[in-house]
Formats: sequence, structure tokens, C-alpha cells
Amino acid sequence: MTDQHIASAFDRDLEAIQARIMKMGGLVEAAIRNAALSLETRDEELAEQVRAGDKAIDGLEELINEETARLIALRAPTAVDLRLVLSVLKISNNLERIGDYAKNIAKRTGVLSQMSAVSDSAAALRRMAREVELMLKNVLDAYIQRDAELANDVILQDREVDQMYNALFREFLTFMMEDPRNITPCMHLHFIAKNIERMGDHATSIGEQVVYLVTGDYPEEARPKADTTSETAIPGK
Amino acid sequence: MTDQHIASAFDRDLEAIQARIMKMGGLVEAAIRNAALSLETRDEELAEQVRAGDKAIDGLEELINEETARLIALRAPTAVDLRLVLSVLKISNNLERIGDYAKNIAKRTGVLSQMSAVSDSAAALRRMAREVELMLKNVLDAYIQRDAELANDVILQDREVDQMYNALFREFLTFMMEDPRNITPCMHLHFIAKNIERMGDHATSIGEQVVYLVTGDYPEEARPKADTTSETAIPGK
Repeated sequence: MTDQHIASAFDRDLEAIQARIMKMGGLVEAAIRNAALSLETRDEELAEQVRAGDKAIDGLEELINEETARLIALRAPTAVDLRLVLSVLKISNNLERIGDYAKNIAKRTGVLSQMSAVSDSAAALRRMAREVELMLKNVLDAYIQRDAELANDVILQDREVDQMYNALFREFLTFMMEDPRNITPCMHLHFIAKNIERMGDHATSIGEQVVYLVTGDYPEEARPKADTTSETAIPGK
Repeated sequence: MTDQHIASAFDRDLEAIQARIMKMGGLVEAAIRNAALSLETRDEELAEQVRAGDKAIDGLEELINEETARLIALRAPTAVDLRLVLSVLKISNNLERIGDYAKNIAKRTGVLSQMSAVSDSAAALRRMAREVELMLKNVLDAYIQRDAELANDVILQDREVDQMYNALFREFLTFMMEDPRNITPCMHLHFIAKNIERMGDHATSIGEQVVYLVTGDYPEEARPKADTTSETAIPGK
């Protein structure tokens, strides 16, 4: 990115909006972390906090939408500047969705707390969530620093999250076959795993935006599609 | 909406983009229909068509993104006009995601075709998909006609889709408990049900955009959140 031009009114406005994106990112990272933690420790109070906290995330997205519209109307940006502004909308939308998934996980904490634990799946889910939290942290750094390389790293990191998801999917199938009492909890746990996997997709999507911003092109088929469970027929097909 | 002002260059450009939205909507409606049909009739060729067709939907979204950016840069719209343009981006993004879900359903057709059918769930899923297809058709009509009332109807219709999903979720749990051989197919069927439910959410999201465009406000908590399965502990908790 060229930083040659003197800070204009447009730059200042954009920076203010980007600061909100970072704030939103911080809230979303915490939501991921706390949702997974509340699940593992069966902490319903923390889960409730995550659920309640989603309103602040949604509020920030709305604010960013409004401020972005105002910026476009006021400064009439074109070319690269316009691309930057439009990317803000996409990124905040991705963040909002990740927040939604965290809220959804927290919602399931209550019902899962009433059931017996299924092996150590909650710990496995927390590790998966930790991975996504890292992806999100890195991709927001990549965004602020306009670092396409770091963004590409995040896109590749998504493959690992997908692999973790695939492994869990098979594990849940096995637990369900072993004992019918595992079926209901495993349906919820599986949902949670899928939600975390989708969070990874949204972090990847932000990464693609960053690559596009910096290079002018979307990463060519860079996005690894490693969730193969839609074709999983084993075990016991 | 005021239609008092004489058709400007802006209006013509916007109309062209809206025509693309409608084209995209038509493709997405067909994708929903064919994905559900291929599942019920175990028609792998049709499923493959849906999977391949998603590229055209993605391509249209990209085109709409570009044309919208060009429109903003060229015409520097403000106020209501800008709101209209930005809503186009959101709506095409919602359509793209619905298309993705349809593709994901089609992907599962192959693996499900190899398993024995679980009762008449494929027919139930097709009915659910039919409902969402209708929602989408109506919400796009509401968008073109700037009809907030019709958009609100769609938002309410989502409650029915959620109810259908809740019923299926419980049904799948029961099938899985009855016979472990149902577990793997039911995991896939459940995913499909959830994907259709999410399609409904995206149609609802378009409905909210329409209400916002027409009235200037988002529907106040209008969106019924009737997927209660995150709290479902029965049967056999």
C-alpha cells in the first residue's frame, strides 16, 4: 500500500471506522473464547454473558454501516479508496456473523450442561475455537497492516480447522453408535463444531478481502475446501 | 418510495444492477428447488448440475459488486440513493449464501443416495425447501416493488420454516435412537434441514433490508427466532 499521500479528511474518517472494526474484532475474539470456555467448564453465567454481549457486536456493525454510508456520501471516494470503504462493510459483516455463531454456541451450553459429558469433546472444541480465535486475530492484524502474506497464512490455516472438524465429525458418529444416550448431546456438539468451522470460513473470507485490497485480485482458488464431511459415509453407512 | 423525479443516469444504472439481482434470484430459486428434488429422487445428475451452477451465481455476485462500486464512483449517490445501492450489495451477498447452501445440499445427495432412505424425510425436506423458495420469490418481488408489507409477510413466514426445522430435528433424533444405522444418514439429513433453515434466515435478512429501504427503519425485533433446537434436550436427554 502506498502511504505517500498526506492524511486527508477521508483517511481520518476511514481510520475512525477501522478503529471500530478493531474494537468489534476484540469483542468477537472474546466471544469465541468465552463461548468455548463456558462450554468446557459448564459455566452458564459466562455463557449468558456471551449471549448478552452479542448485542454490542451487532450495534457496532450497524454503526459501521452508518458511518461508512456517511463517508461515501461525504467524501465520494473512488478507485482504491472506494474499494477500502466497501471492504469495511464486508469485514464488519463477517465479524457480526462470527459473533452470531459464538452466541449460538453459548446458547447450547445451558442444555449441554444438563447432560453427561461426551468424552473430552468439549476440550477438543475449545482447541478448535482457540485456532479460529488466532486466525481472527491474525487476519485483523493483516488487515490493519495491509499484509497480504499474513492474510494468505490465515487462509491456509483454515485447512487445519477443517481437519479438526472432520475428525470431530467422525468421532461424534462413533460416540452416537456406541451409546444412544450420546445422540442428543452429540447433535449439539456437532453443531458447535460446525459453527466453529464456519467461523473459520468467515475469518478466511476476511483474509480474501485483505488479499484483494492489497493486490487487487482475490486469491486464485486459494481457499482450501477441506471440510469433506458432506461426502463422509463412514462409519457404518 | 417517491417516483417523482425523472429517470436519471443513476436510475438507469441502478435498474441494470437490479435486473442482475433478479437474474441471480432466479438462479438461486432454481438451485433450491433442484437441490431438494435431487435429494428426494436421488438424481445425482441433477445434483451435479446444482453444484456446477453455483459458479454462475458467484459470478453474478462478483459482477454486481463491481458494477455497484462503479456506480458509486461515477454517480456519487447520497441519502436514499446511496442506501439503495448499499442494499444491493447486501442482497446479492444473501443470495450468494443461499446458493452456497443449495450447493452444499446437492453435495450430500451423492452420499445419501448410497444409504437406505430414512422414512419420508426427503419429502419433508423438499416441502421445507419449497417454503423457502416461496419466501425468496416473495421477498424479491417485495424488493422490486418496494413493498414493505410483503417483506414483513416474508419475515413472518420464516417462523413456519423454523417450526418445520424443529419438528425435523426431533424426528431425526428419534430415528437415530431407534436404529443406529440411521445415525449417519440422519446427520446428513439434519445438516440439510439446518441449511434450509439458514436459507430462510437469509431470505428474512433480505426482507429486513426491504423494510429498511422503504421505511428507513429496520423492523423492530420483528424477526421471529423460532429455531428453539439449541435448547432442545429431548428426547432421551
